[in-house]
Amino acid sequence: MKAVRVHAYGKRPSVDDVPEPKVTGPFDVLVQVGAAGLCRTDLHIVEGQWAEKSGVQLPYVIGHENAGWVREVGAAVTNVAPGDAVILHPLVTCGLCRACRRGDDVHCESSKFPGIDTDGGMAEYLLTSARSVVKLADGLEPAAVAALADAGLTAYHAVRKAVPLLHPGSTCVVIGAGGLGHIGIQCLVAMTAARVIVVDPNPRARDLASELGAHEVVENGDGLDDSAHVVLDFVGEQGAERVGLAMTRRAGSYFVIGYGGKVDIPTIDLISTERNIIGNLVGSYTDLDELMTLAAQGRVTLHTKQYPLASVNEAMDDLEAGRLQGRGILVP
Amino acid sequence: MKAVRVHAYGKRPSVDDVPEPKVTGPFDVLVQVGAAGLCRTDLHIVEGQWAEKSGVQLPYVIGHENAGWVREVGAAVTNVAPGDAVILHPLVTCGLCRACRRGDDVHCESSKFPGIDTDGGMAEYLLTSARSVVKLADGLEPAAVAALADAGLTAYHAVRKAVPLLHPGSTCVVIGAGGLGHIGIQCLVAMTAARVIVVDPNPRARDLASELGAHEVVENGDGLDDSAHVVLDFVGEQGAERVGLAMTRRAGSYFVIGYGGKVDIPTIDLISTERNIIGNLVGSYTDLDELMTLAAQGRVTLHTKQYPLASVNEAMDDLEAGRLQGRGILVP
Amino acid sequence: MKAVRVHAYGKRPSVDDVPEPKVTGPFDVLVQVGAAGLCRTDLHIVEGQWAEKSGVQLPYVIGHENAGWVREVGAAVTNVAPGDAVILHPLVTCGLCRACRRGDDVHCESSKFPGIDTDGGMAEYLLTSARSVVKLADGLEPAAVAALADAGLTAYHAVRKAVPLLHPGSTCVVIGAGGLGHIGIQCLVAMTAARVIVVDPNPRARDLASELGAHEVVENGDGLDDSAHVVLDFVGEQGAERVGLAMTRRAGSYFVIGYGGKVDIPTIDLISTERNIIGNLVGSYTDLDELMTLAAQGRVTLHTKQYPLASVNEAMDDLEAGRLQGRGILVP
Amino acid sequence: MKAVRVHAYGKRPSVDDVPEPKVTGPFDVLVQVGAAGLCRTDLHIVEGQWAEKSGVQLPYVIGHENAGWVREVGAAVTNVAPGDAVILHPLVTCGLCRACRRGDDVHCESSKFPGIDTDGGMAEYLLTSARSVVKLADGLEPAAVAALADAGLTAYHAVRKAVPLLHPGSTCVVIGAGGLGHIGIQCLVAMTAARVIVVDPNPRARDLASELGAHEVVENGDGLDDSAHVVLDFVGEQGAERVGLAMTRRAGSYFVIGYGGKVDIPTIDLISTERNIIGNLVGSYTDLDELMTLAAQGRVTLHTKQYPLASVNEAMDDLEAGRLQGRGILVP
Repeated sequence: MKAVRVHAYGKRPSVDDVPEPKVTGPFDVLVQVGAAGLCRTDLHIVEGQWAEKSGVQLPYVIGHENAGWVREVGAAVTNVAPGDAVILHPLVTCGLCRACRRGDDVHCESSKFPGIDTDGGMAEYLLTSARSVVKLADGLEPAAVAALADAGLTAYHAVRKAVPLLHPGSTCVVIGAGGLGHIGIQCLVAMTAARVIVVDPNPRARDLASELGAHEVVENGDGLDDSAHVVLDFVGEQGAERVGLAMTRRAGSYFVIGYGGKVDIPTIDLISTERNIIGNLVGSYTDLDELMTLAAQGRVTLHTKQYPLASVNEAMDDLEAGRLQGRGILVP
Repeated sequence: MKAVRVHAYGKRPSVDDVPEPKVTGPFDVLVQVGAAGLCRTDLHIVEGQWAEKSGVQLPYVIGHENAGWVREVGAAVTNVAPGDAVILHPLVTCGLCRACRRGDDVHCESSKFPGIDTDGGMAEYLLTSARSVVKLADGLEPAAVAALADAGLTAYHAVRKAVPLLHPGSTCVVIGAGGLGHIGIQCLVAMTAARVIVVDPNPRARDLASELGAHEVVENGDGLDDSAHVVLDFVGEQGAERVGLAMTRRAGSYFVIGYGGKVDIPTIDLISTERNIIGNLVGSYTDLDELMTLAAQGRVTLHTKQYPLASVNEAMDDLEAGRLQGRGILVP
Repeated sequence: MKAVRVHAYGKRPSVDDVPEPKVTGPFDVLVQVGAAGLCRTDLHIVEGQWAEKSGVQLPYVIGHENAGWVREVGAAVTNVAPGDAVILHPLVTCGLCRACRRGDDVHCESSKFPGIDTDGGMAEYLLTSARSVVKLADGLEPAAVAALADAGLTAYHAVRKAVPLLHPGSTCVVIGAGGLGHIGIQCLVAMTAARVIVVDPNPRARDLASELGAHEVVENGDGLDDSAHVVLDFVGEQGAERVGLAMTRRAGSYFVIGYGGKVDIPTIDLISTERNIIGNLVGSYTDLDELMTLAAQGRVTLHTKQYPLASVNEAMDDLEAGRLQGRGILVP
Repeated sequence: MKAVRVHAYGKRPSVDDVPEPKVTGPFDVLVQVGAAGLCRTDLHIVEGQWAEKSGVQLPYVIGHENAGWVREVGAAVTNVAPGDAVILHPLVTCGLCRACRRGDDVHCESSKFPGIDTDGGMAEYLLTSARSVVKLADGLEPAAVAALADAGLTAYHAVRKAVPLLHPGSTCVVIGAGGLGHIGIQCLVAMTAARVIVVDPNPRARDLASELGAHEVVENGDGLDDSAHVVLDFVGEQGAERVGLAMTRRAGSYFVIGYGGKVDIPTIDLISTERNIIGNLVGSYTDLDELMTLAAQGRVTLHTKQYPLASVNEAMDDLEAGRLQGRGILVP
């Protein structure tokens, strides 16, 4: 089959002919990839930023936002069958550790991350586990949802954690209406009656935020000090950390989702206002299942641009050069 | 009556003869002070550290950890009557703002803080509000509980917030078994089945922690990295902030209670582990009511040393010089 | 002033000239009534069904769903001022008992209920407390929201309690799309992404439910056994209790809001499915505040018919005869 | 191996020689049984009360409260290894359905129940799944904990759900200090600071409750109307249902754990007091893991009487005749 493989860090991946993966374990699921999202992390992998962290052996197949159709399943798989359209949770988890048993599979003690530390989905076929596949409702196409598998799931997860803090009359500030943020906005509008204020310096992002239901869009945080019960910071760097905390009101919570910067605050300033700083990772299997419900209801949609698998480097060029509106999707 | 008043910053307070306060408003409660806790904050007030923040006009009466007996009540007071022994919540709150109406009176939009920004309790009588008095159960003496009014209430509040995160098998690390910490330990033991590990460089503090039910006491955080579901940091400075975060495991929460230092952490380190940083202030009226239940049951006790009101400066000397074991209590 | 007073049970009320109430207490608020909702409970009061329960002394003024404008306030009132448009929480609560201090003022240990056990709002003026008035946002008219004060508040409260149980992919069945139910539907749509199924035998009620955003409307519960994560039963009698429990799936919750019937179920049937039965009363002050936010945003609206105060008996006739579409509103 | 098998309903089981079960599936775990608890349900099975419900084919091995040592594991098992001492969760669950993925495995859509609908643990060996085994801490013997697998787990689960409702100052009434109740009392004392009142007509049960830490023990519910924030009813029949609801105070919750009777209450009585009725089933895998922590800490202990496997009918006679103090344990 065709697969996008990284052979050396600092060098673009090539599209290779490789053997198809095979079902061998009882919970294996072989998926014919329908779409693989292209993520900035893929650029970072190619640059070598993840080399040490992932410890993956080259060459390997990248692609960690995948959806497609089940082609073959192991003997113990009961939740999907060949022919089912599915989206793939980014992690393959053990199902037996304490975290998995509580439903908190993202904190699994021995998970794998296809596309990062093992072969991923920019290929014709991908081997995954029964624990990682969520069946798509009729009408949902893999190409339409693939990018929800990781970026969307992270945004959903943060909003899901914020929902108990947001009531009619509450204010939620969203920093950054980009790839994750514009999904977060849709989730907030679908799941809460909070007032949603979006901060983004990019006028096109602000326009999109308004279309998606944001109640107010602003260029920066001026005048918003102490305004938000919840701040969802999808940027997490270049000053957003400081502005985000400043916008968080007494007893409010600042959710860190984007990263790159640092939180730097005197303990007295956390205490005297009793504010919280909440870390956020990608969502659980249950989160992905719920997000697919929102997608099936049309409440969460994505702007995407499709490329054939063979054009992966063109897609990477477009992403790197800022020419890509919405999410790039590779279709094998 | 006799009252301890600050006349000038940088100068020790004097014991003056001043008029008794009078009940004038419908919710006023006049309390004969039975005991007023002496707190490090009182030293800071005298030094002038609070001058700008409180904006209080000198001279005024200090003392913000108070308990005593009701002597007279306003026309609308229904919850206490003359003769009742009471402990005083440190804040006098409005009861009408949104925060007060939710039971979150600590975040009242227009509260007063006797002993900080208005006349306090180092005096024979103190004027407070029906909203600030919790009746003591039979057998609880004002002198035994006064120091729970602020220091104890802060410790209780943090533990109360941590309880939903602590189950059998969870680990809670307590940093600092001093004035607040030793109350926190007692609250943890009373309210959870979590394993309690106490970190304190002071061997006498560690001995006390063990007596109070800590399951393990250690001198520092060595070997405790990623060990705790919850860290309660009663120090919050001099490196405790860094050690505390390091001891917090994936998906765990670091509670900042002490202060003086700063939290300084890359956003990626919060995200990749999905950890939380939780700010903590003093507890609510309901918290104080619950803490008094623990005190009445004998599950929370305090080490104190009593001084007559006239010896306030001797007590301050002892506190400053580190000669004071347990909490200093002024008895008018 | 003019006031609708009940003089004898079994006899319709009359519109009398009575003295205006006066502000005497520090938290008193005198409200010029802008609108008083007419409720089936008013008919029951007149019939004498509440005589023993309320113990009220005749004659007295009925009307327990009130909104209007503040005309005068007591000395200690800080949250409203003369001229403010307000809606009135149905209870006047003490603010000092444990329940009030937790924000759970509906379970106040010594509340009054104007219109039930003391003079109510079918009059030109009504005396209430600072603790019972919620300021209306600009653009909200008393006549448009008065009926949210009790009926709407009860529906909102139940939905608010159900929100943590409802996620994308959850199903909520609403039994009865009448006075309370049609508000409950609007709250569900505003605050959750759950699938809302409405059961009502009345085709006009079903049409209204569809307009308000219900995803499915059905005549009865056939085929819905074990379907709902949450059932909100706004009927609570005439078999709805049985059907409601039958529609509740394993680990789901049946919310009883309407009443008149009885819950009658073997303990083994609760246990083997681990289902819950949740009682619901009117909402708290905070609930009313939040509901007013939804009203101000246009997410909750009411169908009403206005009558002058003098036509109270015509309005009662219309209500009794089933001629009243929507809620009857008396305008003094 | 020796196994206790039911051959015909209405006839006592016999101890047969049967083939040992074999590991065939990837998640299979073969356990050498160390102890199997004898439960009143076993008597009911023999009487035929479960014949229709379980649909099990005779003959089969009973025994649903099991602990022992792992002897062999399937290829995919990573959480236990041969030699490990383990307790067995009563259910074998699928791990793939929505309930399992949320950690709510008790509501698994396709679980098995060894000892009820498939071969159980009154035998030398038992075949179970990696998802059903909790490793025992050093020092915990299978015979000491086996009866916690079902009875204890049910009591723990109910207490765990009640913990968020119980604070210092709250009252929890426990109805019945028998097999489940006496474990529930220990869990309450370990995990909350609530006041625990135990109602049991049996003086020996009351003595045991006092020893285990109950704050008050009473013969019946007289004088306890409206007293409890939470009632844990381990009886659920013969009037306990009525008494239990009567003891539940406004806004409180009545937990049904025992069964046999029925809940029969007018909807108005649920509504006017806003009380809840909470169904309870056996606990989850996580619950069992937490309960084993309490057992390892010595906070939950059981009174047991051991019998050799061959004496199963003597044990059943003792149970039936009320001669069995504590729980009967069969040791192969």
